[in-house]
Amino acid sequence: MTETRTETDSFGPIEVPASAYWGAQTERSIHNFPFGSQERMPIGIIHALAIVKQAAARVNRAHGLDAEIADAIEKAAASVAAGEHDDQFPLVIWQTGSGTQSNMNVNEVIAGIANEALTGKRGGKSPVHPNDHVNKSQSSNDSFPTALHVAAALAVTKRLIPALDSLCGELTSCRDAWDDIVKIGRTHLQDATPLTLGQEFSGYVQQLRNNYQRLRAVLPRLHLLAQGGTAVGTGLNAPKGFDVAIADAIAELTGEPFETAPNKFEALASNDTLVELSGVLNTLAVSLSKIANDIRLLGSGPRCGLGELKLPENEPGSSIMPGKVNPTQCEMVTMVAAQVMGNHVAITIGGLQGHMELNVFKPLIGANVLRSVELLATAMDSFRERCVEGLEPDRARIAALLDRSLMLVTALAPEIGYDNAAKIAKHAHHEGLTLKEAGLELGMVDAETFDRVVKPETMLGR
Amino acid sequence: MTETRTETDSFGPIEVPASAYWGAQTERSIHNFPFGSQERMPIGIIHALAIVKQAAARVNRAHGLDAEIADAIEKAAASVAAGEHDDQFPLVIWQTGSGTQSNMNVNEVIAGIANEALTGKRGGKSPVHPNDHVNKSQSSNDSFPTALHVAAALAVTKRLIPALDSLCGELTSCRDAWDDIVKIGRTHLQDATPLTLGQEFSGYVQQLRNNYQRLRAVLPRLHLLAQGGTAVGTGLNAPKGFDVAIADAIAELTGEPFETAPNKFEALASNDTLVELSGVLNTLAVSLSKIANDIRLLGSGPRCGLGELKLPENEPGSSIMPGKVNPTQCEMVTMVAAQVMGNHVAITIGGLQGHMELNVFKPLIGANVLRSVELLATAMDSFRERCVEGLEPDRARIAALLDRSLMLVTALAPEIGYDNAAKIAKHAHHEGLTLKEAGLELGMVDAETFDRVVKPETMLGR
Amino acid sequence: MTETRTETDSFGPIEVPASAYWGAQTERSIHNFPFGSQERMPIGIIHALAIVKQAAARVNRAHGLDAEIADAIEKAAASVAAGEHDDQFPLVIWQTGSGTQSNMNVNEVIAGIANEALTGKRGGKSPVHPNDHVNKSQSSNDSFPTALHVAAALAVTKRLIPALDSLCGELTSCRDAWDDIVKIGRTHLQDATPLTLGQEFSGYVQQLRNNYQRLRAVLPRLHLLAQGGTAVGTGLNAPKGFDVAIADAIAELTGEPFETAPNKFEALASNDTLVELSGVLNTLAVSLSKIANDIRLLGSGPRCGLGELKLPENEPGSSIMPGKVNPTQCEMVTMVAAQVMGNHVAITIGGLQGHMELNVFKPLIGANVLRSVELLATAMDSFRERCVEGLEPDRARIAALLDRSLMLVTALAPEIGYDNAAKIAKHAHHEGLTLKEAGLELGMVDAETFDRVVKPETMLGR
Amino acid sequence: MTETRTETDSFGPIEVPASAYWGAQTERSIHNFPFGSQERMPIGIIHALAIVKQAAARVNRAHGLDAEIADAIEKAAASVAAGEHDDQFPLVIWQTGSGTQSNMNVNEVIAGIANEALTGKRGGKSPVHPNDHVNKSQSSNDSFPTALHVAAALAVTKRLIPALDSLCGELTSCRDAWDDIVKIGRTHLQDATPLTLGQEFSGYVQQLRNNYQRLRAVLPRLHLLAQGGTAVGTGLNAPKGFDVAIADAIAELTGEPFETAPNKFEALASNDTLVELSGVLNTLAVSLSKIANDIRLLGSGPRCGLGELKLPENEPGSSIMPGKVNPTQCEMVTMVAAQVMGNHVAITIGGLQGHMELNVFKPLIGANVLRSVELLATAMDSFRERCVEGLEPDRARIAALLDRSLMLVTALAPEIGYDNAAKIAKHAHHEGLTLKEAGLELGMVDAETFDRVVKPETMLGR
Repeated sequence: MTETRTETDSFGPIEVPASAYWGAQTERSIHNFPFGSQERMPIGIIHALAIVKQAAARVNRAHGLDAEIADAIEKAAASVAAGEHDDQFPLVIWQTGSGTQSNMNVNEVIAGIANEALTGKRGGKSPVHPNDHVNKSQSSNDSFPTALHVAAALAVTKRLIPALDSLCGELTSCRDAWDDIVKIGRTHLQDATPLTLGQEFSGYVQQLRNNYQRLRAVLPRLHLLAQGGTAVGTGLNAPKGFDVAIADAIAELTGEPFETAPNKFEALASNDTLVELSGVLNTLAVSLSKIANDIRLLGSGPRCGLGELKLPENEPGSSIMPGKVNPTQCEMVTMVAAQVMGNHVAITIGGLQGHMELNVFKPLIGANVLRSVELLATAMDSFRERCVEGLEPDRARIAALLDRSLMLVTALAPEIGYDNAAKIAKHAHHEGLTLKEAGLELGMVDAETFDRVVKPETMLGR
Repeated sequence: MTETRTETDSFGPIEVPASAYWGAQTERSIHNFPFGSQERMPIGIIHALAIVKQAAARVNRAHGLDAEIADAIEKAAASVAAGEHDDQFPLVIWQTGSGTQSNMNVNEVIAGIANEALTGKRGGKSPVHPNDHVNKSQSSNDSFPTALHVAAALAVTKRLIPALDSLCGELTSCRDAWDDIVKIGRTHLQDATPLTLGQEFSGYVQQLRNNYQRLRAVLPRLHLLAQGGTAVGTGLNAPKGFDVAIADAIAELTGEPFETAPNKFEALASNDTLVELSGVLNTLAVSLSKIANDIRLLGSGPRCGLGELKLPENEPGSSIMPGKVNPTQCEMVTMVAAQVMGNHVAITIGGLQGHMELNVFKPLIGANVLRSVELLATAMDSFRERCVEGLEPDRARIAALLDRSLMLVTALAPEIGYDNAAKIAKHAHHEGLTLKEAGLELGMVDAETFDRVVKPETMLGR
Repeated sequence: MTETRTETDSFGPIEVPASAYWGAQTERSIHNFPFGSQERMPIGIIHALAIVKQAAARVNRAHGLDAEIADAIEKAAASVAAGEHDDQFPLVIWQTGSGTQSNMNVNEVIAGIANEALTGKRGGKSPVHPNDHVNKSQSSNDSFPTALHVAAALAVTKRLIPALDSLCGELTSCRDAWDDIVKIGRTHLQDATPLTLGQEFSGYVQQLRNNYQRLRAVLPRLHLLAQGGTAVGTGLNAPKGFDVAIADAIAELTGEPFETAPNKFEALASNDTLVELSGVLNTLAVSLSKIANDIRLLGSGPRCGLGELKLPENEPGSSIMPGKVNPTQCEMVTMVAAQVMGNHVAITIGGLQGHMELNVFKPLIGANVLRSVELLATAMDSFRERCVEGLEPDRARIAALLDRSLMLVTALAPEIGYDNAAKIAKHAHHEGLTLKEAGLELGMVDAETFDRVVKPETMLGR
Repeated sequence: MTETRTETDSFGPIEVPASAYWGAQTERSIHNFPFGSQERMPIGIIHALAIVKQAAARVNRAHGLDAEIADAIEKAAASVAAGEHDDQFPLVIWQTGSGTQSNMNVNEVIAGIANEALTGKRGGKSPVHPNDHVNKSQSSNDSFPTALHVAAALAVTKRLIPALDSLCGELTSCRDAWDDIVKIGRTHLQDATPLTLGQEFSGYVQQLRNNYQRLRAVLPRLHLLAQGGTAVGTGLNAPKGFDVAIADAIAELTGEPFETAPNKFEALASNDTLVELSGVLNTLAVSLSKIANDIRLLGSGPRCGLGELKLPENEPGSSIMPGKVNPTQCEMVTMVAAQVMGNHVAITIGGLQGHMELNVFKPLIGANVLRSVELLATAMDSFRERCVEGLEPDRARIAALLDRSLMLVTALAPEIGYDNAAKIAKHAHHEGLTLKEAGLELGMVDAETFDRVVKPETMLGR
């Protein structure tokens, strides 16, 4: 049997593991929401809550909180934010919709650590009280959405954008390296006019650059913090100016330009900006799906597919087909993208069901946003390192396919008209001829004109 | 200026076009919800409401409704159900969430037609009153969901299942006709072990058969009708036994086995069965996406793609590339599928937001279900007629690809072990050899064994 | 029988109604995609395509297109863009995924009008040819996505933002008018600390303002046009500088700051910016759901609900319950929001399935974006005019509820501690006492302190 | 430093932790897909794969697999299926789309355990080889989808249906206990005609019963197993009759009526039945949202909401508002429901993107289905135990609200006509009168008639 100690809250006493820093409300939530450990509240949200507590202690001290207590809170909070107590946060996503219990988990653990530092006794509410001191001037209703914005903003700037940049850089290298490789274009998955492999990859580069712009465009709203609104947005029980001061403190602690939200009622009652961010993550997932799908298609084969790209071989591909190698990184990316799109719908459904002064789908929304960011970042890093970096064009195959194409006829249209050019292409297709053979046979173009006009390398728009 | 007459409701008098059969409440809704004509309530719902009214008149007569009035209502309702007055239903989807205004539109038009028949004067409330007679023993709250079930069930059985059957039949013909064509299999879009083209199409046939089973499995719940629950499910103001009698009457009028719902509170407050049906439509859309995508891929080319299937040419494919032909029916099918998946989310979101005794997202739910059914049915009919019927395998191309494949090596694994077989495949791939050449070169198999074991036609599981 | 004339394309001759301006390819599409008229391509896309054609003629003339032909095209295109020939565009959304057939419909109709003007004979390809002249320097692959951006940008700036502004303005009036009405706050739908009705509405105002910022943030990308990329992005068959010149011409014709896209491969192969825009429309739908749901809840009653707001009565609410009035505008708004969320998923699914040089889900994506914009704009206008403008607070009811609340106890926590305050609230709740009675009975607060601290009007954060 | 041993696959040697049972391919996957431990493949899928391996050994022995090896595999597989080695499955969801690496993880661990049992040395490929013996007659392409069906079917029958039954049972108790409590009905969130609280809960019971029927309807398809199709559906390298025999063995091991799928091409290339199942889970989530939302609304207050139900108090509700109690179990349920709806979209998007002989979104689909089932089951159990079991009606409040209602006027409509009844209701509303006062004042009904007709207890449809 685990040793326990007794903690209390307004519901009375409850036994808590003696080794735990948490208190009564955390313990109660463990019992009330018996989901498995796979469903834990993302640790990024816990760390962000700890940053909030650290900042709050700093501001509260300026408004009269006892310096020793404030110091102890700051120190304990900093250690939690640094990931030194990750095992103290057993609560799951599926709890109260305001995140109150995770907020109390953080309050209790910080109080528990601080109390141990000050008294040698772990846990408890004295001298540092989880509500009266750690949560001072705050409510879960403003702390939790503040933590979601902080966690999401940090994940976007520290994890997602760097991964996006790196992948974009690698694709840019492909673009530049393969700028001279003329290949068949494909529209409707059907042969079309030529372009270079570099041009094809330039489209991917542009897609990612646009997503960078999209992410940047959300940040100004993501940097707005609910903190200071307390219970319903009015700021009851928080001193005047608390909202501005704590946003400044959080900005200082994180190095990100956080500001206080201009309207706290909106900041508690809605999570619109997280829905917006998820919409951008959804767009990025769409872009990545396109890129990974193209690379999968271009790498199809090795002998019965398109075969224009050779993908790196990372692992055995089949438990039954010896020697098979599969585009597993592409598959991972497209699965991750589907998950992000699903998460987006969950977030949307959570976002739309707010009532009055508080949206109570916050843990759902926050957990999905953070998971989407983390999945996308890891997927992009892995895809870059294990797929894009190892891509090699099969120049011989590319050249062979280009030679066969019928859509080079497009270059003739301005000379002989769309309708005649169409006749040549159809004649070649149905009779199995080259375009030139077909054109001469139909008497619609002479050899000299054909050779002058139908040159893939002049059809690239340069 | 249009000539008008005055109609009244509990809000007072209002001018209505003299030529219209409708009354005050319809007219009011036209003004209150100014969406364009593209947003009209699907006519299938109107026809189903008219069937409800016809059945109600029949049952009400047995409970004392004046025979002349009942007759006039029945006759007018039958003409509406038959599509003779489709221009009399101008209301849009985006109205009250109970569909009250469309129910009143139907009540008013039927009363208007009946009154004209009885008095020579169009419209009005006498002798046939839209509420007291046409809507007798009913509420919008039970009539509208009843109409949704009737409209959806008829659309499924009369439109969707026949289209599914026909497409399934055509794919079955492909399966049978091409049962001898051995071709390369593809997993992960990479070359795999062989199968026949007929086997490949047998998978599509099975997908559609499963969807038939799925649709059949929903029908028992779709055949349950809310009618008789009136305002909140208690049946207030409807005579005892009205629910059973009207379900019988609707069954008789439609030839479908409708029954009264066992619990009217559920039948008004939720639209779960329409959400369920939409889930099945979503599954069908997934199946059709797979089939159409495969055919698009197999038909890619004509010279730089897989090129195993030749798709019928239905129209010029490009405004700039002469002679280009595209898999347009596949594109249409996959776009329709995406719409059905989107509609499904709209339906889900509508379904989850019911409150207490009434879900008030009924027009949204009904309109999306009917649109999804209609889109899928038309898409399957068109796809069958204009794509599947004209498919032709390119036997020479199929044979050429099969010959090149490396995955035939799988047949060697039980003889020489997975690891050795893998070495042969990799050696062939990297050196550009045939499998046999590679196997002999590595000394891992002798020619006789190779020829005996590596025969695509014996790798088909027959 | 309808009189016809013969038109031809590369598939041969086909009969077209003599009265129609369109040609062979349009006629062929009518037969190939037999969806009903409810499924027509949104007219906004047609108008935008006509703007593209007008601009193209202008630029093509500078590059040598015969002036008479250019003039005739410009004039015809302008009349189409102005909505004078809306009945000439019978094609549906569910066609080829590049929108080629709608592009050809516009090309053919403009040629048909121009030819009639020049020769007196309707239709045909001479002297103005739909491909060689109207579509000159263009492909469907760049014209259609250009039209989608033009149509979407115009819909956002001319329809959506004005409707958003107006609704925001009306909510701002509510906010200002009701700034003195202190009411109970509600979190978790449970009684919480007080705020003013004006503060509550200030949250809605902020939500809409944020959505305005979101829409503005998408516009720079929406203003980038694919035109000039032609078939695959290389610009084959378009003169040098065509892309910049036509973007300028479109900007001039529309008054919107359109520019040429920096990378045409991305602009054809992806529709990411429309997915992004849809994500913002989804966010707006989430915001509107929240606002409409709150107003529905606050207006619930009239006697057994919250009853803090009185909603305008626009129509009879029930076909069975006399005198019932329902929050129909709220219901319309929340249904529209659900549709927008569903459309968003359809758009996402279309966006993720692009292949190589072309995304072929463009009609699906474009039609859903335009429908979402139009639905939201109309919904906001109607909601503002028929609901928000007529809202009235029930001051007596609001005051009565405020008086009863237990959560005013929060103001005591800084004085007597969280735990003691909790005991007072619980005691009051379980014994049916007022807070003051409970506090005195428990001896935890004296009357003087209570009266000084527990004053709703000082709990508003002012 | 961790001690290691060397394992090999067709890619060569690789170091594996000495304590691990897994081999080279598992180790490779750990490095190739560096997602965190929160993203692990659900253990239910691992257990189901182990059941497949156990059954395969049994059938393979009948087809000549060495008995000692077969025994060792069976024993090892049984221990994995029983959860004795859960720490040996470190691979994540985001891997190859066929689940090959998790299949190999299971193959390797079983071989590793068996080899240890037979030789005293952990791991390796001898005498038991992960591919040649454990995976004998199988491919990942049939084993993994088989495991998904087995895992999903077991989760549905052993976890979900029991939880559904229990919740349904508890709601049935509420229905029966409160059958005499007459209360105001609400449609459009507005006061409507009365019903009993028991009737209201009978709707919830019916919703759950319907979901039970829906789940049962999917099971026949979920019981169909892909096993025996091997690499592409042909069954290459599996002995004749293997498919039937292994389905029988799995049925015996699990006690569920599994059967071999009638068409293996469908069973590998599509995951339609999992999409279908997810559609049913989505419907169940919709139903639970409705029920939890209603209970939240009915429990709103305690003093400023509807207040008809008292919810059990499980924990302190607020970190700032002392004594606040929130409907946290309802919030948990509605968040879980939103997640299930999001998962459904992810599953749909995975399902639609199959290519040719294999859908490679299987880990995504399987992980989401299992998570949805697990979330719903836990949510229903917790909601039942911690919310529904403790619900108590506030009879006094219910009676007070019923007395005030205006919609009792509906009972007068059959007597005095809809229009007159509407006038009475409106008059009462605007003048603040009771219905009776209003009726008498308007002279539209006499007191005796009123008292006879307007009796809530006779308006219940009994």
